[in-house]
Amino acid sequence: MPVPTHIFDPPFNIVRVSHVVLEVTDLAASRAFYETVVGLRVTDADAGTVYLRGVEERQHHSLVLRKADGPACRRIGFRLGHEADLDAAAAFFAQRGLPHAFVEVPFQGRTLHASDPFGLPLELVAGMERRPSSLQRYADYQGVRPQRLDHVNVFAPEVQASLDFYAALGFRLTEYAEEDGPDGRIAAGWMHRKGNVHDLAFTNGRGPRLHHLCYWTPTALDIIHLCDVMATSGYLPNMERGPGRHGISNAFFLYIRDPDGHRIELYTSDYQTMDPDHEPLRWSLRDPRRQTLWGAPAPKTWFEEGSLFAGQDLRDPAFVADVIVAS
Amino acid sequence: MPVPTHIFDPPFNIVRVSHVVLEVTDLAASRAFYETVVGLRVTDADAGTVYLRGVEERQHHSLVLRKADGPACRRIGFRLGHEADLDAAAAFFAQRGLPHAFVEVPFQGRTLHASDPFGLPLELVAGMERRPSSLQRYADYQGVRPQRLDHVNVFAPEVQASLDFYAALGFRLTEYAEEDGPDGRIAAGWMHRKGNVHDLAFTNGRGPRLHHLCYWTPTALDIIHLCDVMATSGYLPNMERGPGRHGISNAFFLYIRDPDGHRIELYTSDYQTMDPDHEPLRWSLRDPRRQTLWGAPAPKTWFEEGSLFAGQDLRDPAFVADVIVAS
Amino acid sequence: MPVPTHIFDPPFNIVRVSHVVLEVTDLAASRAFYETVVGLRVTDADAGTVYLRGVEERQHHSLVLRKADGPACRRIGFRLGHEADLDAAAAFFAQRGLPHAFVEVPFQGRTLHASDPFGLPLELVAGMERRPSSLQRYADYQGVRPQRLDHVNVFAPEVQASLDFYAALGFRLTEYAEEDGPDGRIAAGWMHRKGNVHDLAFTNGRGPRLHHLCYWTPTALDIIHLCDVMATSGYLPNMERGPGRHGISNAFFLYIRDPDGHRIELYTSDYQTMDPDHEPLRWSLRDPRRQTLWGAPAPKTWFEEGSLFAGQDLRDPAFVADVIVAS
Amino acid sequence: MPVPTHIFDPPFNIVRVSHVVLEVTDLAASRAFYETVVGLRVTDADAGTVYLRGVEERQHHSLVLRKADGPACRRIGFRLGHEADLDAAAAFFAQRGLPHAFVEVPFQGRTLHASDPFGLPLELVAGMERRPSSLQRYADYQGVRPQRLDHVNVFAPEVQASLDFYAALGFRLTEYAEEDGPDGRIAAGWMHRKGNVHDLAFTNGRGPRLHHLCYWTPTALDIIHLCDVMATSGYLPNMERGPGRHGISNAFFLYIRDPDGHRIELYTSDYQTMDPDHEPLRWSLRDPRRQTLWGAPAPKTWFEEGSLFAGQDLRDPAFVADVIVAS
Repeated sequence: MPVPTHIFDPPFNIVRVSHVVLEVTDLAASRAFYETVVGLRVTDADAGTVYLRGVEERQHHSLVLRKADGPACRRIGFRLGHEADLDAAAAFFAQRGLPHAFVEVPFQGRTLHASDPFGLPLELVAGMERRPSSLQRYADYQGVRPQRLDHVNVFAPEVQASLDFYAALGFRLTEYAEEDGPDGRIAAGWMHRKGNVHDLAFTNGRGPRLHHLCYWTPTALDIIHLCDVMATSGYLPNMERGPGRHGISNAFFLYIRDPDGHRIELYTSDYQTMDPDHEPLRWSLRDPRRQTLWGAPAPKTWFEEGSLFAGQDLRDPAFVADVIVAS
Repeated sequence: MPVPTHIFDPPFNIVRVSHVVLEVTDLAASRAFYETVVGLRVTDADAGTVYLRGVEERQHHSLVLRKADGPACRRIGFRLGHEADLDAAAAFFAQRGLPHAFVEVPFQGRTLHASDPFGLPLELVAGMERRPSSLQRYADYQGVRPQRLDHVNVFAPEVQASLDFYAALGFRLTEYAEEDGPDGRIAAGWMHRKGNVHDLAFTNGRGPRLHHLCYWTPTALDIIHLCDVMATSGYLPNMERGPGRHGISNAFFLYIRDPDGHRIELYTSDYQTMDPDHEPLRWSLRDPRRQTLWGAPAPKTWFEEGSLFAGQDLRDPAFVADVIVAS
Repeated sequence: MPVPTHIFDPPFNIVRVSHVVLEVTDLAASRAFYETVVGLRVTDADAGTVYLRGVEERQHHSLVLRKADGPACRRIGFRLGHEADLDAAAAFFAQRGLPHAFVEVPFQGRTLHASDPFGLPLELVAGMERRPSSLQRYADYQGVRPQRLDHVNVFAPEVQASLDFYAALGFRLTEYAEEDGPDGRIAAGWMHRKGNVHDLAFTNGRGPRLHHLCYWTPTALDIIHLCDVMATSGYLPNMERGPGRHGISNAFFLYIRDPDGHRIELYTSDYQTMDPDHEPLRWSLRDPRRQTLWGAPAPKTWFEEGSLFAGQDLRDPAFVADVIVAS
Repeated sequence: MPVPTHIFDPPFNIVRVSHVVLEVTDLAASRAFYETVVGLRVTDADAGTVYLRGVEERQHHSLVLRKADGPACRRIGFRLGHEADLDAAAAFFAQRGLPHAFVEVPFQGRTLHASDPFGLPLELVAGMERRPSSLQRYADYQGVRPQRLDHVNVFAPEVQASLDFYAALGFRLTEYAEEDGPDGRIAAGWMHRKGNVHDLAFTNGRGPRLHHLCYWTPTALDIIHLCDVMATSGYLPNMERGPGRHGISNAFFLYIRDPDGHRIELYTSDYQTMDPDHEPLRWSLRDPRRQTLWGAPAPKTWFEEGSLFAGQDLRDPAFVADVIVAS
């Protein structure tokens, strides 16, 4: 299948993935998980919402937890370059007949809500309130010392079409997993705007659903420490997969589940990708090192479970690819 | 079941586990594995034998590979305090009617071969030729940077009796796994002479067989690097279990298999145990964090496979304990 | 003094710093240093030139060593976005009456040589031959495991004017050191194109001279290992400063000198900077944590010595700022 | 000068260094330093005393802080094997006419206070109250994650005589620094009982004074984190030397000063020494890598400052050796 060709001069400038809004059922339990166990910093909180950010982040929040009756992912946020990009984005979604509206969101600048053609709820901003970085407040470090939101991964029923859509918005493919053979279909793709392996990835599956959001950590030892902390403080059932090394992205990783089952990846040590002639790496679906360089298959839950996007219906994937699952 | 009580004034002084003699079928393949992949240093080699040691070790060898028709563990070596301890040891084995004989072994001082009551072939020395430590030859470091032989773990058909025998030789129990209930039997025990968690461990199972030998490494990152090296240089099938954190011993670990299937553990960060009133830790067999703090069960091979001791018949274990195995 | 304001729509698109060309007096000694000690990979070599790259780099070279009668830095290379940017760059330098010429360089695409107004010799390319990344050839890792060229730092007699010139080319200031007081002058500035702390930095001093080039490493432990290797394999005199943590950039660092005295930094763990509203951090020249968070001053050589640019005359700095130097 | 020969069958059995009693002027400030910054755990505290231990330690305390009018080291504690060793020790000190007395100390078993011939105030115990290890309470880890007291280092006016005295108590020399030449005198010696590089070291100097006490940490990255924490939370002036790699012991180290100036070392990765034929390593006083493998000299304060032992007069050293000091 054709590898999508990204546009160098997109209709509006997306700088990077910016934040994620999650709906959670027990705000106190979720705050404890993200603040104490994971180690994010709470910027602000009220009765229904907690705003968090990584230790290097100067933006007000990269994760918003909102109290709700059931768990869901509300929005995936992207940072645009400038105010004019917001207007260009509104025009783009209007031209394609896609839902979009400017809304007021606390702590954020002018904010555009929009949906992509596949039902992914987006939240576009050109800025939000800034806070001092906590990077050199080392005495406050805890948990896995999460530095910044790195990327979001989504279950997509139509992977190829999703990749094509975001390529037309300037996202560039860095790695992809494909069936073998002349008609092999792409089963997953990793795309970036900010210059590392990805801001946004699509995995073939029933969706749209959020597969995970990911924070970057300084070293593998921080991730090992998080394993030790979780296993000995009541969070053993929240450890889902890893630690390990991805073949794809080369990152050292761990997947955990928050109290509502939202999946979080901790991740470090991928690579630079900003050269315009940077070529995507192809992985065969038959190569088990794609998912874990060290060969251990992922558990079934990792392949099957994800967070609903609030208000979105699910569709079955366009095809079912063979994958290797831990029995 | 009774926890064995060690003797403070044993009949002869065992300082620590000293070395292991393995029989291998392809000496070149085994040397490449231990020297290049694991990173041990070759002290000497001839047509039939390769002698290796860890980077800090000043003794001539802690691992001996001998060409043979089939794989086996030939001997487990222990370091005694002084020459007089060798004679006391010979007297001890004589008094109990156990096989023993003084033999000549290259690069070693006076050497006593003996068998324990359960068929474990021992090789006792009060010294061997010394070589300079390579600890500060950093430019020569490779693989997992193995510092020193740490311990040996054996499948024992009679765990309780084995623990009792070695307790009478001054080995002290630091941790053990036991069935629950008033008649719970000990299924595994870890015993030391040198002041950390163990020199010698016994695991309930068909035996006697060598479960694994273990080298100490500086940090968990060295073990992660070994995973990356093995997975990308043709040794993926030799990776058996981990990396992970043991509940027992608190060590960060990895288990690998050499070209003949002999199992090697890489291990770091356990704790001190030399206080005479140091109390052993009990683990319930029902606690999965015992084997892996992070909860992942060990694969079936890890429970079932081991190296024969050359010339020893196997016996079934005294009982079969329930354990949790990865399916 | 005014903090320079970068241009969002520069006359041509510089993607990142790309490579450095050094002149060395003993090619074999320099190759041994960079290949064996530092751990760069040799892509190609002939009688007069060695081409090297970091383990993740897919471009043919990020460091070129050329045999010469005396040590010098020949060129600092930048990667442009596309071929058209090369022509726009040529027009830009022509319009300003600055030296420029298209030249043939092995393994590189069309190459533009140019000088900035301060005598910095630049080499601009829109691409070079590509090679497979060695990122997952872990068995070949050695030295400090350098991943990629990160930045170049230059002694500039006219820091403010240099920052202004590169801001007009789209470089964005992330941190700067300034005299205190209303007329405080900027003594050093760090500027980026690729989205981390810098591609190019200017330090007030006699120049133009190369202060150092820097490779990114995976973790601080790799840098500590390089210290151990150098100290025990004859390279102790080549260790100049560190390891330590910079206040500026938050990076863990080490400075070493190659056989000709060219200075190399090894560096890890800075932060993201690609948001258009990312504000530069100001450091007072009186704050010793600016250079080393842990307080240790840099040695005198670090402040005074640098590599000449071949064929360039030196000028004294516009002013002399007080700095804290190890006596 | 003669290297001291240790006794294999000493008059009483010292297992290891056990604890240190420090007098401090501001108990709250000292507790904050050791508990929050260093990361020791407080076992008990009252108006005048705080008892702390490392995360793996099962004994009630390895550091006791006592409120006093001026700073001093009150006692260096050693753990004996059994109750009978306490009586043998009392007899030993009586026979030599050295001060000794059995005293009551909270949380400790029968306790013998004694002075060595050089005025070092000792506190000998055969046990103290035990507490659960915190090794697997990972969520409580903080600071440098200190695992256990490792050793104590003392300024001795008579180094050779001190080494000889403790050799007669079974301490074994592992490394020593000596003047060159046929009459070269030993300027420092490292001695152990527990099987690693040292429990007790003597450094030539005005004394007796405590040079430092040392806690073992899991990895070098924990020590780097402590540097970052101290430098950014008001403890920059308390950082005295390092981090670095000792030539002697091969340990990665950091020296810090507590609020009263008592010196603490954090230390990891030395080596095993329990073999009876383990030979001590000699370092020339002229080899700068002895103190720091990477060549950086120690600051003057490190050579000159130490904690008084309460009530002890100072004596000048028997000789003054040339050492290399940072100017």
